[in-house]
Amino acid sequence: MSQEPRYHEAERLAADLERIHELAEALLPHLPDEHAPVPPALPEAADRLNTLTAILHELHPADVATVLEHLPQKERALVWRLANPEEDGDVLLEVSEAVRESLIEDMDDAELVAAVEDMEADELAELADSLPQQVVAEVLKDWDDEERAQVQAAMSYRDDQVGAIMDFETVSVRADVSCEVVLRYLRRFDSLPDHTDKIFVVDDHDILQGVLPIRKLLVSDPDDLVENVMARDVVRFRPEDDAEEAAAAFERYDLVTAPVTDHNHKLIGRLTVDEMVDVIREEGETDMLNMAGLQEEEDLFAPVLRSVQNRWFWLAVNLFTAFVASRVINHFEHTIAQIVALAALMPIVAGIGGNSGNQTITMIVRAMAMGQLSGIQAMHLLKKEIGVALVNGVLWGSVMGVISYLLYHNTGIALVMVAAMTLNLLLAAVLGVMIPVTMEKFGKDPALGSSVLITAVTDSGGFLIFLGLATVFLI
Amino acid sequence: MSQEPRYHEAERLAADLERIHELAEALLPHLPDEHAPVPPALPEAADRLNTLTAILHELHPADVATVLEHLPQKERALVWRLANPEEDGDVLLEVSEAVRESLIEDMDDAELVAAVEDMEADELAELADSLPQQVVAEVLKDWDDEERAQVQAAMSYRDDQVGAIMDFETVSVRADVSCEVVLRYLRRFDSLPDHTDKIFVVDDHDILQGVLPIRKLLVSDPDDLVENVMARDVVRFRPEDDAEEAAAAFERYDLVTAPVTDHNHKLIGRLTVDEMVDVIREEGETDMLNMAGLQEEEDLFAPVLRSVQNRWFWLAVNLFTAFVASRVINHFEHTIAQIVALAALMPIVAGIGGNSGNQTITMIVRAMAMGQLSGIQAMHLLKKEIGVALVNGVLWGSVMGVISYLLYHNTGIALVMVAAMTLNLLLAAVLGVMIPVTMEKFGKDPALGSSVLITAVTDSGGFLIFLGLATVFLI
Repeated sequence: MSQEPRYHEAERLAADLERIHELAEALLPHLPDEHAPVPPALPEAADRLNTLTAILHELHPADVATVLEHLPQKERALVWRLANPEEDGDVLLEVSEAVRESLIEDMDDAELVAAVEDMEADELAELADSLPQQVVAEVLKDWDDEERAQVQAAMSYRDDQVGAIMDFETVSVRADVSCEVVLRYLRRFDSLPDHTDKIFVVDDHDILQGVLPIRKLLVSDPDDLVENVMARDVVRFRPEDDAEEAAAAFERYDLVTAPVTDHNHKLIGRLTVDEMVDVIREEGETDMLNMAGLQEEEDLFAPVLRSVQNRWFWLAVNLFTAFVASRVINHFEHTIAQIVALAALMPIVAGIGGNSGNQTITMIVRAMAMGQLSGIQAMHLLKKEIGVALVNGVLWGSVMGVISYLLYHNTGIALVMVAAMTLNLLLAAVLGVMIPVTMEKFGKDPALGSSVLITAVTDSGGFLIFLGLATVFLI
Repeated sequence: MSQEPRYHEAERLAADLERIHELAEALLPHLPDEHAPVPPALPEAADRLNTLTAILHELHPADVATVLEHLPQKERALVWRLANPEEDGDVLLEVSEAVRESLIEDMDDAELVAAVEDMEADELAELADSLPQQVVAEVLKDWDDEERAQVQAAMSYRDDQVGAIMDFETVSVRADVSCEVVLRYLRRFDSLPDHTDKIFVVDDHDILQGVLPIRKLLVSDPDDLVENVMARDVVRFRPEDDAEEAAAAFERYDLVTAPVTDHNHKLIGRLTVDEMVDVIREEGETDMLNMAGLQEEEDLFAPVLRSVQNRWFWLAVNLFTAFVASRVINHFEHTIAQIVALAALMPIVAGIGGNSGNQTITMIVRAMAMGQLSGIQAMHLLKKEIGVALVNGVLWGSVMGVISYLLYHNTGIALVMVAAMTLNLLLAAVLGVMIPVTMEKFGKDPALGSSVLITAVTDSGGFLIFLGLATVFLI
C-alpha cells in the first residue's frame, strides 16, 4: 500500500474511518473490556481484531488522531488500545485537546512515560498540562539540563504566546564562512529538522545576524561568504509575542519558518508554519464557538455532563436576558390585553433585529481578527451600518407593514410595524458595531458570546420599541 | 529601516496603518481628486504627500494590501494611487476579493496590463475573473504557448478546486542521477521557486516517481543516486480535487509543497502551503459568515447598497420564518387574550431553544469541516445531544418554572413553562443535528444559513409548544 500513489486524501481517510468504525463496532460485543482487548475465541472475531490492528498500524499518526476524534467512546478506547504504541506520542500531539484527555485517562503511567520520553522539549511542554505530574517528572529525570530548561521555558508561556509553540531545533552558522563550508557542515547531520527552509546566521554570542535561505544557498557560488548571501531584514518574533499575530505575519509574508529571539536578539528557537496553520485553524474555530456561546472546543462524543458544563454559562446568560425581555413585555400587559395582535407581531420585530445585528457583529468580529479597528474607522463603520439598517428597515418594514395591514386592516398597527422594525434595525446596527469595539477596547475577545449579547439587545429593544409605540399611538 | 530587527509585527503594522490613515485624512482636503493626486501648493501638505508616498514604498505588498482593506473609500483610493506601481500586481494578489474589485475599478487598461504582465500563469489566472477581458487578452498576446495553456488550464477549474490554486513552478530531476548532479543542476538556477522544500523525481514522460526532500538531499552522500534517497510514498493531488480537502491534508501531514498530477500520474504542477493557509483561513471565515446569513465576504467600507445586496437574502428568509412564527401565535389569540402573562413568557421558551440549537449546530458544522460524519455517528451524536437537552431542559426549565410561579402565583403556568422549555430544547437538539446532516447529505454547505434555520424552528416550535400546552391545560 505504501508504494501506491495516494490520491483523494479525504476519500481515502473517510473510507478508512468507515472501515475502522465497522470493525470496531462488530468487535465490541466479543470483547469483555475494550480497554484491554484480548483475542476473542470466535475465529471470525479474532480475524477482525487482526485486520483492525493491521489497518491502524499502517495509518499515519495524524490519521489515527482524526479517526479517534470521530469515534464514539467505546470504539475510541478499543482503537486507541490497538494502535501502534510506538506512535502514541505523535497521536497525542495531533489529537484535539478535548479528545486528548480521554486518551490519557486510558493509559497508565508506564505507558505514558514510554509515549513521551523520546519527544522534543517543545512537544513535551505542549502535553505537560494534560499529563500526570509524576509522568513529567519521571521523563525529565533522564533528560539533560538544557532540555529540562527548554521544557520549563516553553511551559512558562501562555498557550497563546509564541514561546509556548516555538521549537528549539535551530540550525545556525557564522556569517564569515563560505557556502561550501555550510554545505559540508549540513552534510554532517543525520537529518535536518522538519521544515528547514533557512539556516540562522549568528555571531559568537548567538546574536542573530540574518538568515540564509536554503534556496539561496543552493544556487550560490560555493565560494561566496554567508554574509554576502544572507538576508538581514528578518521577520523575527519574541517568545512573549501573541501567537495569532505571529500566524498573521506568517500568512502575510508567506513564511515557512522564522527565528525567535530574546531581548538581546539572541536566537532561542524558531516557529514553523505547521504550528501556525494550527493557530489559524483554531482561531477561526474559537471565534465561531465563542459567538455561539460555547466555552471551548468540545469532544463530539464527550459524556453528556461534560457537554452541559461547556454550554451552561451562555445558556444562563441567555435565560437571564430572555427574562429581562419577558419583563419588558409584561410591562405592556394592558396594551396586549387590548390588542392581542401585537403579541403575534412582536417576535417579527425582535427576530429581524437579531438577524441583522448578527450579520453586522459577525462581519466586524471577522474584520477584527487583525486587531486593526481604530476609533475613527469605527465611526466610518457605524455610519455605514446605520445606512444599511435604514435601507433594510424602510424596505422590509414596508413589506411587513403592508402584510400587517392586509391581516388586521388597521393602519395604525401597520405604521407602528414599519417604525418599530426600522428603529430596531438601527439599534441592531449601532450595538452590532459598539459591542465588539467596546469588548476589544477592554481587552476582551470580541467574539465572546457576541451573538447572545446582540440578540438580547434586539429582543428587549424590539419589544420595548414596538409595544411602546403601540401604547403611545394605538391605545 | 530595513536593517532594523522587525519586532512585534502586528504592533508595527497597526502603527503604520494609523500613521497612513492620519496622513491620508489630513491630505484629502488639499487634493481636488484623490484618484489623481497632484502635489498640493501648501508646503506642509506637499510634505505630507511625500512622507505618505515614502512610507508606502517601504511597505511589503502584503502590508499595503492590509492597509487598503482597512481604509475608508477615499483614503483607499489615494493610498492606492501613491503606492509603488511596480508592486501593484502583488498587492492585487494579496487583497481580499471584495476590495480587489474597488482597486481594479480605479485603474485604466494600460496600468492593469503593466501590473499583471510579469505575473506567473497561476497568478494571472487567479486575477483573470476580476480583470477586463481586453486586459487579459493584451497580456496573453505576448506570452508563449505553454504559458497561455497554463492560464487556460488554471481558469478551467472552479475556485474551490486544486487546479485553480496550483502553480507551475516545478523543479524536477531523474531518478538515476546522483545527488551531486542534482546539486550542480540546481546551482544553474538564478533562484529556486518559493517554498521549494522538495525536488520532484520524474521519468522521461514526466510521470512522477517520487520526491527528493531538500533536507535529505543536503545530508546525503553526493554519490548517492536520487532513486535511493527519494521518498516514493508521496501525498499527491489531482487538479479536480477539493481545495479544502487538500488543505486538510497539508495540515495533517505538515506539508510545505505537494505535487499535482493528472490521471496518468504525469506531473503538471504543485501546491504550496501559503495557498493552503489562505484556503484554511477562508474556510473558517466562510463558515462564520454563512452561519450568520451573509452571502460572502464584505468590503468593510463598501457602499451601503452593495452591503444591502450581500445581506438581503437571509434577512428575507428570516422575515418569512418570523412571519410563520407570528401566524402560530396568532392561532392562539384567544388563549393569550385570557392569560396575557403567556405573551410575556413565550419569548423565553423560544430564546433558550434558539441559543441551545445554535450551540449544537455550531459544534456539528465545525466537526463536519472534514466531511466525516457517517449516518451511524449522526445517531450517536443525536443521542448525546438529546441527553444534553434533557439535562438542560429539566435544570433551566425548573429555574424558570420557579420564577414564573413567584411572578404569577399560578402552578399551571409554572408547570407548562417547565414542560415547554424541555420540549423546545429537545426540538433544538434534534434539528440542530438533523439540519446540518441533511444539508451535507444533499451536497449543500452545512453552515449555510444554519443559524437562521435553527432559530426559525425553535421560534415557531417554541411558541407552538408553549401556547399549545397552555391552551390544553390552562384554558
